[in-house]
Amino acid sequence: MDLLQACRKYAPLVHCITNYVTVNDCANVIIASGGRPLMADEITEMTEIAQKAEVLVINIGTLNQRTFTASLAAGKVMRQYGKMVLLDPVGIGVSTFRQKAVQEILTTVKPQVIRGNFSEILTLISGQQHGSGVDIAQTDQMTQATQDGLIAQMQDFCQQSDCILIASGPEDLIVNSQQAYLVQNGHALMKDVTGTGCQLSALIGALLGAGQDWTKTCLTATCMWGLAGEKAAKKITVGDGNASYRNYLIDAVYQMTDKEVKEGANYVKLR
Amino acid sequence: MDLLQACRKYAPLVHCITNYVTVNDCANVIIASGGRPLMADEITEMTEIAQKAEVLVINIGTLNQRTFTASLAAGKVMRQYGKMVLLDPVGIGVSTFRQKAVQEILTTVKPQVIRGNFSEILTLISGQQHGSGVDIAQTDQMTQATQDGLIAQMQDFCQQSDCILIASGPEDLIVNSQQAYLVQNGHALMKDVTGTGCQLSALIGALLGAGQDWTKTCLTATCMWGLAGEKAAKKITVGDGNASYRNYLIDAVYQMTDKEVKEGANYVKLR
Amino acid sequence: MDLLQACRKYAPLVHCITNYVTVNDCANVIIASGGRPLMADEITEMTEIAQKAEVLVINIGTLNQRTFTASLAAGKVMRQYGKMVLLDPVGIGVSTFRQKAVQEILTTVKPQVIRGNFSEILTLISGQQHGSGVDIAQTDQMTQATQDGLIAQMQDFCQQSDCILIASGPEDLIVNSQQAYLVQNGHALMKDVTGTGCQLSALIGALLGAGQDWTKTCLTATCMWGLAGEKAAKKITVGDGNASYRNYLIDAVYQMTDKEVKEGANYVKLR
Repeated sequence: MDLLQACRKYAPLVHCITNYVTVNDCANVIIASGGRPLMADEITEMTEIAQKAEVLVINIGTLNQRTFTASLAAGKVMRQYGKMVLLDPVGIGVSTFRQKAVQEILTTVKPQVIRGNFSEILTLISGQQHGSGVDIAQTDQMTQATQDGLIAQMQDFCQQSDCILIASGPEDLIVNSQQAYLVQNGHALMKDVTGTGCQLSALIGALLGAGQDWTKTCLTATCMWGLAGEKAAKKITVGDGNASYRNYLIDAVYQMTDKEVKEGANYVKLR
Repeated sequence: MDLLQACRKYAPLVHCITNYVTVNDCANVIIASGGRPLMADEITEMTEIAQKAEVLVINIGTLNQRTFTASLAAGKVMRQYGKMVLLDPVGIGVSTFRQKAVQEILTTVKPQVIRGNFSEILTLISGQQHGSGVDIAQTDQMTQATQDGLIAQMQDFCQQSDCILIASGPEDLIVNSQQAYLVQNGHALMKDVTGTGCQLSALIGALLGAGQDWTKTCLTATCMWGLAGEKAAKKITVGDGNASYRNYLIDAVYQMTDKEVKEGANYVKLR
Repeated sequence: MDLLQACRKYAPLVHCITNYVTVNDCANVIIASGGRPLMADEITEMTEIAQKAEVLVINIGTLNQRTFTASLAAGKVMRQYGKMVLLDPVGIGVSTFRQKAVQEILTTVKPQVIRGNFSEILTLISGQQHGSGVDIAQTDQMTQATQDGLIAQMQDFCQQSDCILIASGPEDLIVNSQQAYLVQNGHALMKDVTGTGCQLSALIGALLGAGQDWTKTCLTATCMWGLAGEKAAKKITVGDGNASYRNYLIDAVYQMTDKEVKEGANYVKLR
């Protein structure tokens, strides 16, 4: 069965421990792709929820000590049950607290998929702070010159951490220990809406719940989100800005079909 | 005076201790119906706020130990002042934490109105977990065959807990110890927007602030929200999805009049 | 360089410790004006973030003990670095907790700019609770008769606290120890969207990050937000309500130019 069709049929429960900035959009994107969002961060209920959820998305956008502890607890149980955990290290370069939190999640939870923007992924794989906020620093943008080295570094990380890495930007990299894909879908307006990265992570989380090949799911989901950005941009009319575009993006996922994704997916296999 | 007119004239202060997923929509729905939303969960200020608010809405969607304690404190003071408390037991079937929290709220606060979806209401009245998320499990949908038994169970609960129960789904039940109504307003798209249940609870909360008959207010508010769903669906055009529909829903409440509600309300008195 | 152009060029990092009700809109408004929003409230990371951010916006809409402590920590470090802190005392009249919190922020952080609605500003400068919620009480509306006395009181406060005060309402006052401006931009619909005050604070925060004259920035930002309200109102069509208007507001900021602000700004210098 195709990915979206499977997700919409199976309706996986996607547990999100996520930031309070973009949480509503993440929930609506998960619904738009067929998943069932469940946002919860009280440590007392993490084990029971892990029994019910198919996927856990940990997003550290507004992490604090309490939700960090809950993330560790939820993540560990999910992995004991052999379930999927996706980590979005939002703003990891912003503070030592976030760097250490991600390190501990890596060590004790071992998420199978990690998605961030280029600054976040660079911080993750180098251990040194990149970017001053939750967006990509100009100096961290991938170029023709840096692409190969970056993929090699990412693959090393994938091998060590036994995970798939997704680096998002104007073009996206999806890398596992063996393969590397470059996704060229997307639109420049997407960076002007808060949480388009968070929403991509939520979308990947939902689609991973369909139980298909992980790397292929990450690739398809990334193309799909970029395609949604392209479709949404076509709806822009005079006077529209980032708020309207935010709605168009989620609408586009809601209306998306597997056929559209197949026809519109724009990616290159690099390795 | 008619309900919406009264709410818009009196502008009741509606204190919400609610989840961070759908809180913005809840605030805007309260404004759309004429109420004044006040979201606050710091325990230190619960007593003072209870002095000012007309209604308290407790929504456990992202409850944690801290906000649970605040809910108990706020709820108790509200009831001491003889004011209205509405409980929305979001995802009560998801964890023992939520079940116990609701039990303690029932015992110590005694909310006059409780609204949830069918899985949540089943968990509430049976004490056994129904549903794996915050949506209705297929097996918990009300059918012709289960309707009578369910109403009887709900009425028992209403008698024991001295409250009104609202069970939401494709069709909604509003039940008190004597009466039962079936509301047939609504639209299938509503389940594809996160928090349409939360928003109904917020809307009922605001309208209860108008100080009219409780059961009638619950009935009218439920019809009104369903009608908003119907009106919003008529605005859907090509390319629109759940994000646009989310806006149309709140817009519809903002534009709603008592006349429209009277003409469009679609319900049956069962008992 | 003009203000919006400078903000869009410099892209200041705006750290917000803010409420979970309107946080998404605040982030999108900051982006719309050229700033980079960073929402974070974990005390462990406040010092590092203060090193990176140009501006801190403290909004007490859903303040609790934990985020209050973080606000103090972040604010103190920002001021040590000579950076801007803006305080939005949301609902200060609602509780002693909020009044005391604001008092301590005033004493230990000394924010350079404070923006609230008329009830909030009256509570701030008089020390007595005005308003029962997060909106303006009817009795706190500024009139021809109260305007002069209010400005005098505000100027006393500005002198004592060494800050700029902005009081928002149907018309807005911007006051420093020497000057006073009355802004007449705006639209009545703005009060029907939750968080239009929070968003104005966020917008001022972003624009202060451009590093221009503080009072002039506050004045221009307030005109700009009022203008956005006027432009957004022109987009309203049949069936639109406060949810659509919410989107139009942010869209209008996204599309705003310095030229438009100069042509549309509607204010009077009173002192």
